[in-house]
Amino acid sequence: MTLSAKQQLREQDLVDQVVASFAATPDPRLRELMGAVVRHLHAFLREVRLTEAEWSTAIEFLTAVGHITDDRRQEFILLSDTLGASMQTIAMNNEAYANATEATVFGPFFVDDSPQIPTGGDIAAGASGEPCYVEGTVRDTCGGPIPGARLEVWEADDKGFYDVQYGDDRTAGRAHLFTEADGSFRFWGITPTPYPIPHDGPVGAMLAATGRSPMRAAHLHFMVTAPGHRTLVTHIFVRGDSYIDRDSVFGVKESLITDFMPQPAGTATPDGRAVDGSWSRARFDIVLAPGD
Amino acid sequence: MTLSAKQQLREQDLVDQVVASFAATPDPRLRELMGAVVRHLHAFLREVRLTEAEWSTAIEFLTAVGHITDDRRQEFILLSDTLGASMQTIAMNNEAYANATEATVFGPFFVDDSPQIPTGGDIAAGASGEPCYVEGTVRDTCGGPIPGARLEVWEADDKGFYDVQYGDDRTAGRAHLFTEADGSFRFWGITPTPYPIPHDGPVGAMLAATGRSPMRAAHLHFMVTAPGHRTLVTHIFVRGDSYIDRDSVFGVKESLITDFMPQPAGTATPDGRAVDGSWSRARFDIVLAPGD
Repeated sequence: MTLSAKQQLREQDLVDQVVASFAATPDPRLRELMGAVVRHLHAFLREVRLTEAEWSTAIEFLTAVGHITDDRRQEFILLSDTLGASMQTIAMNNEAYANATEATVFGPFFVDDSPQIPTGGDIAAGASGEPCYVEGTVRDTCGGPIPGARLEVWEADDKGFYDVQYGDDRTAGRAHLFTEADGSFRFWGITPTPYPIPHDGPVGAMLAATGRSPMRAAHLHFMVTAPGHRTLVTHIFVRGDSYIDRDSVFGVKESLITDFMPQPAGTATPDGRAVDGSWSRARFDIVLAPGD
Repeated sequence: MTLSAKQQLREQDLVDQVVASFAATPDPRLRELMGAVVRHLHAFLREVRLTEAEWSTAIEFLTAVGHITDDRRQEFILLSDTLGASMQTIAMNNEAYANATEATVFGPFFVDDSPQIPTGGDIAAGASGEPCYVEGTVRDTCGGPIPGARLEVWEADDKGFYDVQYGDDRTAGRAHLFTEADGSFRFWGITPTPYPIPHDGPVGAMLAATGRSPMRAAHLHFMVTAPGHRTLVTHIFVRGDSYIDRDSVFGVKESLITDFMPQPAGTATPDGRAVDGSWSRARFDIVLAPGD
C-alpha cells in the first residue's frame, strides 16, 4: 500500500504528540519506557495497517486474558511466555558469561520453603513417574568447586502437573539440597516428561488458531545460589524429547539439553537403591558466573 | 550499553524462533499480525533493556487493567486511548480524502437507538448545561448538499457525565436527526465542557505517574451516515478550551476546532426559543467522502 505523504505525516505527527505527552514524567526511566512503548506500539499499528475490526478483536482478547487471570492462573505471564517476551527478558538480564551455565525461564511453579533433602535424597516425595538419578557439580568459571551451594530443584509429575496444581497442599517433586565440599551433588527425582501449559483460555485459543502446540519440552528446574556468585535459574532438557525444538515458551537452549540415559529394569543403581522397574540417569555440571 | 556480538545474536535468534513458531498459522493475515507483534514487542524489550523487575511491574499493571474491566468499564480501551493507539487506528482507517471532514475517536459512550428529534429540536432532554445552538450543512466533496443524512449527536453534561454513566436508564444529551432537502441541519444541545476520563484505575495511575492530565478537551460527538458516502465519526472541539492541546486521548484535530460563540443573557435566539441566561452558538459544515 502506498501512503500519501500527507497521511504519513499525519500518522507520524500523532506518534510525536503521544511521545511528547510523556515529556513531564518525573522518573526518567519511566519516561524512557513510555516513550518506547508508544513508538513501538504505533510502529506495529502502522506496519500492519490494523483495521478497526482487528483493534476490537485485540481489545476483546486482552479483556479475556484479564478475566481468566486470578490468584492461581496468570494468563498474562502465559501470554508473555508464548510470545517469547519472558525468555527475551531472561536472556537480556542474564547475559552469557564465559563458560557459565545459561539461564532459562523461571516459570510459575516455584515455591519458597521447599523441603531440604540430604545428598542422594529423593525430591519426588510421592510424585508419580520413572525414577531418575541426577548428579553433577557446581563450579566457578575458573573450575573451582563451590561447596555449600544451594540447589532448588522442582519438576512436574508424569501426569504433567506440579504439586501446587493439585490444590491440596501436597509438596512433591520439589526440594533443596547443598553441594558437598568438592562441589558435587546428587539426588533422585523423576524422569521429566512433556506437558502442556494451561491451554483452555485465550492464550490456548491463540496457540490453536496459529497451529502451535501448548506443550513444553520435558525439563527439570534448577535455581542455584551461592555467595559471591550470580544466581542461576535454569532447566535441563531431555535430549531426543519430541518437543525439544518447539517448546511453547522458547526456553530450550542447546547447552541445556542433557542425556537422560535410560536404565532398563534390574540395572544396579549407583547408591544401591532398590528400584522397581526402569530408571534413568543424568549429569548436570553447573558453572556459576561471578556475582555483580 | 554495548552488547557483545554473541549476545546480540542470541537475542535475535530468539526473535526469529518466535516468529517462525507462527509460520504454520492457516490464516495469512493472522500470521502477519502475530509476526509483527513479536518483532515489535521484542524490539521494544531489547531497546529499553527491560529489567526483570520492570517485566513484573508490567504484568501487574496489565493484570490490574484486566481486573477493573467489566461490562460497564473498559480499561483496555482507555489504555489504548491514552497511548494514542485508538486515534492512530482511526487515522489509518479513515484516511483524509480531499476536503472531507476528518474523523476522530468514537469513544465508549455511543448508544444505539437514540431518540429522533426534528430539525431545531433539543438533544439535551434534561442534561444540565448552558444551551448551545448548533447549525450547519452536510455536503459531498463536490459541494452538493446531502439531504436525509442521519446525524447522531451525543455529549456529556456540564458535570462531565454522559447519561449512561448515571446508571439509571435516563436518555439525555443524545439524539439523532436528518438533514433537510438543502443539506442543512440545526439543533439545540449544551455547550461542551472538559471532563476527565475515568481515572481511578490503573490507567489513571499511569497518567498520574507520568504527569499527564486525565481531562478530555470539551467536545460534541457526531456520527454522520448517508447512502453512498463513507460514515463519518467525529467531534467538534471548542476553540480556546484549556485542554485543546493536551486532550488525554489525542482526539483533537485542527480542522475540528470550532468557534462556540458566547451569547450573553438576553441575546435573541435564531429560532425564537426563550433561553434563561447565556447560551452559545456554533457552526459545523460537514463534508462526507464518497463511499468505498
